[in-house]
Amino acid sequence: MRDFSQNHDWLSINTATIRKQRGTEVPLDRIIDQCAAHGIRAISPWRDQVAAVGLDKIASQLKAHGIGLSGYCRGGFFPAPDAAGLRAALDDNRRAIDEAKTLDAPCLVLVVGALPGALDGKAAYKDIGRARGEVRDGIAASLDYARQVGMPLAIEPLHPMYAADRSCVNTLAQANDLCDELCGTNKGEGLGVAVDVYHVWWDPQLKAQIERAANASPSRLLAFHLCDWLVPTTDLLLDRGMMGDGVIDLPLIRSWMEACDYPGMHEVEIFSRDNWWKRDGDEVLLTCKLRHETAC
Amino acid sequence: MRDFSQNHDWLSINTATIRKQRGTEVPLDRIIDQCAAHGIRAISPWRDQVAAVGLDKIASQLKAHGIGLSGYCRGGFFPAPDAAGLRAALDDNRRAIDEAKTLDAPCLVLVVGALPGALDGKAAYKDIGRARGEVRDGIAASLDYARQVGMPLAIEPLHPMYAADRSCVNTLAQANDLCDELCGTNKGEGLGVAVDVYHVWWDPQLKAQIERAANASPSRLLAFHLCDWLVPTTDLLLDRGMMGDGVIDLPLIRSWMEACDYPGMHEVEIFSRDNWWKRDGDEVLLTCKLRHETAC
Repeated sequence: MRDFSQNHDWLSINTATIRKQRGTEVPLDRIIDQCAAHGIRAISPWRDQVAAVGLDKIASQLKAHGIGLSGYCRGGFFPAPDAAGLRAALDDNRRAIDEAKTLDAPCLVLVVGALPGALDGKAAYKDIGRARGEVRDGIAASLDYARQVGMPLAIEPLHPMYAADRSCVNTLAQANDLCDELCGTNKGEGLGVAVDVYHVWWDPQLKAQIERAANASPSRLLAFHLCDWLVPTTDLLLDRGMMGDGVIDLPLIRSWMEACDYPGMHEVEIFSRDNWWKRDGDEVLLTCKLRHETAC
Repeated sequence: MRDFSQNHDWLSINTATIRKQRGTEVPLDRIIDQCAAHGIRAISPWRDQVAAVGLDKIASQLKAHGIGLSGYCRGGFFPAPDAAGLRAALDDNRRAIDEAKTLDAPCLVLVVGALPGALDGKAAYKDIGRARGEVRDGIAASLDYARQVGMPLAIEPLHPMYAADRSCVNTLAQANDLCDELCGTNKGEGLGVAVDVYHVWWDPQLKAQIERAANASPSRLLAFHLCDWLVPTTDLLLDRGMMGDGVIDLPLIRSWMEACDYPGMHEVEIFSRDNWWKRDGDEVLLTCKLRHETAC
């Protein structure tokens, strides 16, 4: 197992983690400067944060600092109530792939979507099987273009509590099944999975499905995201905990990834409305580094 | 499929649904009188509600009204940090089995527990695999006594968002696996599952696992619980929705149960701090009856 107790070379910061500092939204170029000042080697930025500053400006800034990406957040949201909506989702994913390429991301993370409209409180339909079919078709259509330009797609299973409104892919087994269906186990170039401990820690199949993902050719393990599950969790979206503050056995899950030769970054992704987003950004970055050394 | 549009003979009320009325806790004997007045044929009461009034008094009252049980809430919470805690849990489950027998319940519902202490905000350990082993051993030990007295145990898989603090059995597949491990598929007398749509609606394996439960001998389908998943869901515990107000395809899931010859009650179980618990209890009961006719 890689020893992270003395270094943070493999630590990446998902920029949602410090998108708010002292309760106030902070622009991405400022966040990148902060990460550089703390010696952070990689980030995973969100599309809206990039767009607010400008894609080319962010690309140049990252290059100047020597900061890479651990992933790009995010494509997906494929289901829609009608053909126009499905088409619009494909177009948007094509743009996300292009942006990821400009930023030299190792993968575009897919939060695949669920019942269309549910995120706004009114689902257009209740058939989650239909949504899952639309997700499969959307990934299949996007994969052609992603392969052309050389941008791997990482399906991120989301916790089942997001099955209605954010992602109808809710287990790693489901994500692996999708990869099998779309590529087979031996032609999987350009399609894989993102393992976020918050979403999958509870799954009794987790170890077996990490191994299954690793044993495909090539390995499907494209990203690994860290945070913690708090008890109690007070909000379904904005109460992700700092590593060590919750109940997830992080060293155990990391050992499964390492045993499968996952060589990549550890991306810290914390949305925390009532805690970390209220603190000073430099304190948050220092804590991320410390906890990555001591709790993972 | 049974036609419920004209009757509510198969409607049961989990008494948590109206344990608070206009924001105030209401004793179980009053709740039972209300259910009787609305022609409700069955309820599923909670142990603390029964204890507050008295077990024998509740048993007599139910008999006098001709009201049966669809289940008894609840046994479980097997994991503990030490031998004394494990022993205490077994003793408590034995008492729950005795109470269920006194009330002539068709089954004791098991919410099996998870990381001990997590419900109070401090987990004694993080090894969910250990908790799952303690659950298996606890059910095995309780099953002997439950079979002696003739009280079936119904393992209720809880939504993965409760994996830390309430139940480390989070899918119907896991519950079926436990039944297989403890009984085999053909000696399953006295052990089965409770299917609560709130906990399992998202699961891509749901239909297959309902069929698996039904195909055991005897059928493991011991209980079926109804409510709805709201978008947004504002609280992890106390925001269960009324049937028809959310995104669960209730007729579809019911059709799977009926196709498997589930002959039993539909138990409405709604915890709703900011909505139904604030309303008049008779309004809630009328709404349960109406929505059972129109939305299920």
